[in-house]
Amino acid sequence: MVDTAPRTTSNKQTIAPDRSAGTARPKPAGSAASAPQSAAPTHPTIDVAALGRQLLGTWADIRLDARDRAAQPDLQRIEGQTMAEHRERVLGQLKILVGHGAVHRAFPTALGGHDDHGGNIAAFEELVIADPSLQIKSGVQWGLFGAAVLHLGTEYHHTTFLPDIMSLEVPGAFAMTETGHGSDVAAIGTTATYDEAKQQFVINTPFRGAWKDYLGNAALHGTAAVVFAQLITKGVNHGVHAFYMSLRNAKGGFLKGIGGEDDGLKGGLNGIDNGRLHFTNVRVPRENLLNRYGSVAEDGTYSSPIASPGRRFFTMLGTLVQGRVSLDGAATTAAAMALTIAITYGNQRRQFNAASDTDEEVLLDYQRHQRRLLPKLATTYAQVFAHDEFLVKFDAVFSGAADTDDDRQDLETIAAALKPLSTWHALETLQEAREASGGAGFLAENRMVGLRQDLDVYVTFEGDNNVLLQLVAKRLLTDYSKQFAKADAGAMARFVVQQTADRAYHGTGLRSLAQTIGDFGSTARSVAGLRDERVQRELLTDRVEAMIAEIAGRLRDARKLPKADAAAAFNRNQNELIEAARAHGELLQWEAFTRALAKTNDPGTKQVLTWVRDLFGLGLIEKHLAWYLINGRLSPKRAKAVSAYIDRLIERLRPHAQDLVDAFGYGPEHLRAKIASGAELERQDEARAYYAAQRAAGTMPVPEKSKK
Amino acid sequence: MVDTAPRTTSNKQTIAPDRSAGTARPKPAGSAASAPQSAAPTHPTIDVAALGRQLLGTWADIRLDARDRAAQPDLQRIEGQTMAEHRERVLGQLKILVGHGAVHRAFPTALGGHDDHGGNIAAFEELVIADPSLQIKSGVQWGLFGAAVLHLGTEYHHTTFLPDIMSLEVPGAFAMTETGHGSDVAAIGTTATYDEAKQQFVINTPFRGAWKDYLGNAALHGTAAVVFAQLITKGVNHGVHAFYMSLRNAKGGFLKGIGGEDDGLKGGLNGIDNGRLHFTNVRVPRENLLNRYGSVAEDGTYSSPIASPGRRFFTMLGTLVQGRVSLDGAATTAAAMALTIAITYGNQRRQFNAASDTDEEVLLDYQRHQRRLLPKLATTYAQVFAHDEFLVKFDAVFSGAADTDDDRQDLETIAAALKPLSTWHALETLQEAREASGGAGFLAENRMVGLRQDLDVYVTFEGDNNVLLQLVAKRLLTDYSKQFAKADAGAMARFVVQQTADRAYHGTGLRSLAQTIGDFGSTARSVAGLRDERVQRELLTDRVEAMIAEIAGRLRDARKLPKADAAAAFNRNQNELIEAARAHGELLQWEAFTRALAKTNDPGTKQVLTWVRDLFGLGLIEKHLAWYLINGRLSPKRAKAVSAYIDRLIERLRPHAQDLVDAFGYGPEHLRAKIASGAELERQDEARAYYAAQRAAGTMPVPEKSKK
Repeated sequence: MVDTAPRTTSNKQTIAPDRSAGTARPKPAGSAASAPQSAAPTHPTIDVAALGRQLLGTWADIRLDARDRAAQPDLQRIEGQTMAEHRERVLGQLKILVGHGAVHRAFPTALGGHDDHGGNIAAFEELVIADPSLQIKSGVQWGLFGAAVLHLGTEYHHTTFLPDIMSLEVPGAFAMTETGHGSDVAAIGTTATYDEAKQQFVINTPFRGAWKDYLGNAALHGTAAVVFAQLITKGVNHGVHAFYMSLRNAKGGFLKGIGGEDDGLKGGLNGIDNGRLHFTNVRVPRENLLNRYGSVAEDGTYSSPIASPGRRFFTMLGTLVQGRVSLDGAATTAAAMALTIAITYGNQRRQFNAASDTDEEVLLDYQRHQRRLLPKLATTYAQVFAHDEFLVKFDAVFSGAADTDDDRQDLETIAAALKPLSTWHALETLQEAREASGGAGFLAENRMVGLRQDLDVYVTFEGDNNVLLQLVAKRLLTDYSKQFAKADAGAMARFVVQQTADRAYHGTGLRSLAQTIGDFGSTARSVAGLRDERVQRELLTDRVEAMIAEIAGRLRDARKLPKADAAAAFNRNQNELIEAARAHGELLQWEAFTRALAKTNDPGTKQVLTWVRDLFGLGLIEKHLAWYLINGRLSPKRAKAVSAYIDRLIERLRPHAQDLVDAFGYGPEHLRAKIASGAELERQDEARAYYAAQRAAGTMPVPEKSKK
Repeated sequence: MVDTAPRTTSNKQTIAPDRSAGTARPKPAGSAASAPQSAAPTHPTIDVAALGRQLLGTWADIRLDARDRAAQPDLQRIEGQTMAEHRERVLGQLKILVGHGAVHRAFPTALGGHDDHGGNIAAFEELVIADPSLQIKSGVQWGLFGAAVLHLGTEYHHTTFLPDIMSLEVPGAFAMTETGHGSDVAAIGTTATYDEAKQQFVINTPFRGAWKDYLGNAALHGTAAVVFAQLITKGVNHGVHAFYMSLRNAKGGFLKGIGGEDDGLKGGLNGIDNGRLHFTNVRVPRENLLNRYGSVAEDGTYSSPIASPGRRFFTMLGTLVQGRVSLDGAATTAAAMALTIAITYGNQRRQFNAASDTDEEVLLDYQRHQRRLLPKLATTYAQVFAHDEFLVKFDAVFSGAADTDDDRQDLETIAAALKPLSTWHALETLQEAREASGGAGFLAENRMVGLRQDLDVYVTFEGDNNVLLQLVAKRLLTDYSKQFAKADAGAMARFVVQQTADRAYHGTGLRSLAQTIGDFGSTARSVAGLRDERVQRELLTDRVEAMIAEIAGRLRDARKLPKADAAAAFNRNQNELIEAARAHGELLQWEAFTRALAKTNDPGTKQVLTWVRDLFGLGLIEKHLAWYLINGRLSPKRAKAVSAYIDRLIERLRPHAQDLVDAFGYGPEHLRAKIASGAELERQDEARAYYAAQRAAGTMPVPEKSKK
């Protein structure tokens, strides 16, 4: 490629830097094994306390407070409760949170909040430690129902509705999704038709597919809702808008014209009363339209501060991005907990005596066990660092500190890239950790199965992961074509020629790198190059760029086609587009990890963390190794070195595995997993002592084999 | 490699051929869309009924009977029951099965059984359709507890204990696993010390880690158990043996010296009362030793028909292989059900109108959706065919028709290779199917989350998947070194030289194939070659061979090292060994699919099934593409063609997706998933009719956008 070839948009979307990492409150990280010291790089040790502070990130104090709260038994899940019991318990827990003043941080100071958006999410995420149902039901009440009134409503709605929402006097549903439309919100069927005569909106459900569905608080507890519907006035459909409406009377019965159903048992999150709602010409006052982005005058005239209906729609939905932010954080927390449990157990549990006749091996000394858990630990580290930057970016937008259209679009693209990766990673990690703990991992008492059941839906709600990644891909394509459009005809022609030449060149597999990557070619030719930060960055960046460039090339003429043919052309590239978006998200995570590394001061910690980052980066390259080989970015010999070097990194990291999970800072009151409580170590010690005593006393039965 | 180089052992372990495929009872497969016909290969159609019969396999009639039974509501799971309710219900269902005479097929004819081992497993597997808890609790009672008495006991035990086990008069536990030892059964701590004076065995639990754990029937219902313990007589430990003992009195209280605990809630299978047991010098009569493979005379003299303690141990454990056989089948059934649900829904559900202004796309028309589900469908087909061959092999061994030591070892290796692949595949498929169904997939009413929760433990019980694959790898290494040992010094020297040359040659990435593969090189050089059955076979076979050869080379000198160093050398290759075992299992599945294809007669069905087989084979090659590139088996250009051809196969298969799942033959009484009931199609039709009527009547509100 020539210099006019576009760079990946990742620079533009660089997640904002840490705003106050230095304010983190120190907390003992619970690792008995490690003593902080200034270590020699060859035998580094981790300063677990300092690393723990870094992992807590920008809102460290708030997180620690929230963790203290999550450690309270009355906020924690009781395994084995019926759905009905669990639902009541979680509703009660929401009241406890209100009593603690723990959930109003994002609301206006004038109403008793703190106007603190980042801190609010940080605290909210930690609730997953107590019970994901508590996290999500809080999210429904204050992060969706309340936030919709806050962000889509105006002064009247804030003063009229927010106080009762904040106090939980009015539990409410966020009635957006319909049975027939989940991710495609623009296509919902519910209508809100303005009646000029009575100055009311008539909310109606025209068919079964337009029933609101999967709504927390809808089955039982919600007495009000924010309902999303197509706003129709004077025969014109102005698109999706939100309306505040009451649902139930004081006895819990539905108001006239409203009906519903319980969604019943789910795969998890059964502390939340998800349900369905439908409306038969229910009338609400004109004032109940949450009218920040669109108003209807008494005479039915529609007006909006945003002229374009499309932009208006995305602006309205964009105010709800915090759901995705918080899922990214909560999913990362769950993965960190699972790894803490499985690695602690793997360091105590013994099985098979491969190397000696008497002592069995600790599970984590098996290469396969290391390969199963340590790369997932590296990814979790990357996500912790990426999430903190993401949250800083979110806070900047929502506080108004950096709130341009571009900022908002970048924030949404980051959310759409990171939330899928971290929620899928959480499920994979919880599963691998449970399997690595064998039958014990399957017991509810060891938490991993329950967390996995609850987090399952994180991958499809608040934006289906595949749909979100497709949004990212479309953004990457748009940015690409924008840069492309700026090129003059001459440059464009050169570009096309170069691109073709480049593709053919790479296709032969004879060269290891794109022409544009300058001196990178020489470093990649040595095995040591894989350790080089620049090499990892270039390999990861290059893949995003090249994939997008290739797809853009294939789609270049599709825009001129009839709609159906253009859609078909796009569809033939859909899978690869989503893979390109994934690569972009992985790059964002790698970059955030690398920036965090630059801030790590303790030499021993920095050395170990560098290995963790390298494991993450090379793990990504190994996962996509075929792409690097096919496209000539790595020679077969270099590609083989990737896996070999990963094996070496894992061997180096193995002695630090316990410190690395201890640095997450979870105590037994958070983990609440019997196998991570030290019980296994006691059992192992007891068994070994029993056999040692028998051997010492000469009372050990002789094995039949040795008699022959 | 030269001709002396060993071939993969897959030929030796070829799964036995279908013994009576022609006897399958035809059953309407419920596909409205397809009419059987002799189709032109270019536009083939599937004979769904005939394909359905082929998929039912060798014990078609028994499977159909068992499916009819699984369709009975009183044998099915009620979602949302408490653990206590669910346990009682499943116990009651076991009694229903006894009443139906449905569970005695494997027991001796003399005692009312049928001596039919294959048919017994076929029927047993289908129970997963009703409730996996019912399947596994039946398995505990008759497949483990009863089967241990049958296979490890002798005439006295059969006549004394089996009738009450068969009738469920005595529910029992299979007390092998201990808290401290799961997969490493040889190292269990429980002791059974012979007391010559009283002619009794004293069963004792020496420490907490030796408590029996995770045992079905132990927490509540079991009144007896087969207990595995180290048999000690005259100061010699003869290794693990099984003892029949009573656990509880008529009131359900533990007998003297016996204690236990409930394992409590689990991630799934909560219809089974798993629990722990411990024994404090509990005395059982000498006769209660299940003495088929080891006896103790009155005077305490030990004798066994198998001289080697190691071989004896593996022979005893080998009698329990049927658990792995049945999990392979049940996991495949669950995957097939999940795909039937998700593909049926994906063919009805519409979302986003990409190609037109009015009609939304059906989910399965999206490339990503196809990529998520169709390769998993291909794998499920492979597993159905492989499982039937596996079951035929099992039946041959257990009926005595082909019951040599080699047969038994092959059976165990096949079990250890297939069970991990199919149980992991079931979890991945259930998860992908649930995600592909969005929020609806998370509702218990659509079954996928419940099945996934129940099947989760299939990957770690009856042999942890990673431990089993390591057993396969060791067998492959052993076979490799045996063939190696037969070579004379000259051949060996030549081999070493050749191997080195070969490795270097492959390493350069300049050639696409090993020298030994003859004319294969030329076919692989054309894109069409990928469709060639021989090419797929060679690529898959070559990978297993080459991986094993390379690891064997690295381990060649390790045997001479001290035990700890040898173990370390082995450990450094553990991950790759397990990957080689996985490749071997995949090859077994591919070969079984290919043999099944050869038996498919209808031309249209054969054509479509060939695409499915190719999708499976090329999917395996794509998954391991980096290996093929690094080792010079595929050029970058050919490697790229693999993914492109998979895209084409998926496009071709898309119109046949519904027929392919309909051929599994599950009706609504089996699936019991609302989203696969046609309700979604009704909703979609209603919504489209509503909008069409509005458009026709001119009452559709005008979009704001079109007013500008």
